[in-house]
Amino acid sequence: MHTDSQKSEFHKIRMARKKAQIDAAIARADQKKGLLLVITGNGKGKSTSAFGMVARALGHGMKVGVCQFIKSRTDTGEEAFFSQFPNCEWHVLGDGFTWDTQNREQDIATSKNGWQVAMKMLTDSSYDLVVLDELTYLLSYDYLDKDEVLNGLSQKPEMQHVVVTGRSAIAELRELADTVSEIKDEKHAYKSGIQAQKGIDL
Amino acid sequence: MHTDSQKSEFHKIRMARKKAQIDAAIARADQKKGLLLVITGNGKGKSTSAFGMVARALGHGMKVGVCQFIKSRTDTGEEAFFSQFPNCEWHVLGDGFTWDTQNREQDIATSKNGWQVAMKMLTDSSYDLVVLDELTYLLSYDYLDKDEVLNGLSQKPEMQHVVVTGRSAIAELRELADTVSEIKDEKHAYKSGIQAQKGIDL
Repeated sequence: MHTDSQKSEFHKIRMARKKAQIDAAIARADQKKGLLLVITGNGKGKSTSAFGMVARALGHGMKVGVCQFIKSRTDTGEEAFFSQFPNCEWHVLGDGFTWDTQNREQDIATSKNGWQVAMKMLTDSSYDLVVLDELTYLLSYDYLDKDEVLNGLSQKPEMQHVVVTGRSAIAELRELADTVSEIKDEKHAYKSGIQAQKGIDL
Repeated sequence: MHTDSQKSEFHKIRMARKKAQIDAAIARADQKKGLLLVITGNGKGKSTSAFGMVARALGHGMKVGVCQFIKSRTDTGEEAFFSQFPNCEWHVLGDGFTWDTQNREQDIATSKNGWQVAMKMLTDSSYDLVVLDELTYLLSYDYLDKDEVLNGLSQKPEMQHVVVTGRSAIAELRELADTVSEIKDEKHAYKSGIQAQKGIDL
């Protein structure tokens, strides 16, 4: 067994080594540019994470645009909260989930209209951060033309950050992205019979 | 090849089936209770996701408490943004990362003080949502007594939601949680030389 004083010394040595590695990584990471972030996977926290970035951005005085592609409800905590800020433009563009409408033509028309709203933001450098919430479904269901969407994202203003959320992001979108986080559902309260709750899911 | 009209019909049938499954799941999920959520993994979006829940909760008029255990900096977008709301109590309780202090005793003392602040919230049912940002490190580094922390979390008010973030959540914490999301780092801009940026990481 080591004494407390030895433990402290070992700790100091390990941490000094770690600090050197981290400082070197920070020194290497010297570029600034607008990012394309994709947050996907079947776990909880994808849209939620995007909304956390909205909060951060507003905290820095940045201008934010949000397009929610699937949701039709406008009583969510996130919308109630963020739409009060003049720097944050919020669009609920969906008709509900595809299993609610059960109408492919209607879903496609809704998606195309929504994409026009998104494209206005993606061609306007005054938006510092654009969130395209649940856009992935519109690609995996072929509601939008893949090339049109990928081109739109590729041609965004250089310093603009764009966050795309939703399950099953297609491979081309992952390739185009600077950062891809995959959220895995290790355990979910919903599956043990707990309903979606305000503040957490809504 | 199927005609467009056949495609629409197939779509309708598939979506009707899916809706029945989802409705049944919603009917099964009929409980309401305060949740313990753990957001862990090495990917981007853990704290960010917690801050998204803060926004949702504030949008519903809920009272929120946030403890940031590692961070010492107080110039983040999230703090600038959320600390302007009277319903949101925000504490930056860290001394920086352990590789900055390189001092185990100091880290332990800081952690213990921070935990006292957290315990005040975890024993006060007026907080609807409590975020314990980066608490996982304090357990995996043995800065806090594991049993003390797990007991504190177990005894939280029944309707209070608690979100714990950070890498490498220990097994006992995952077991205790209602929801565990693991965020996997599939691709990270930082690794290709892009620095942490306002609105996204800060």
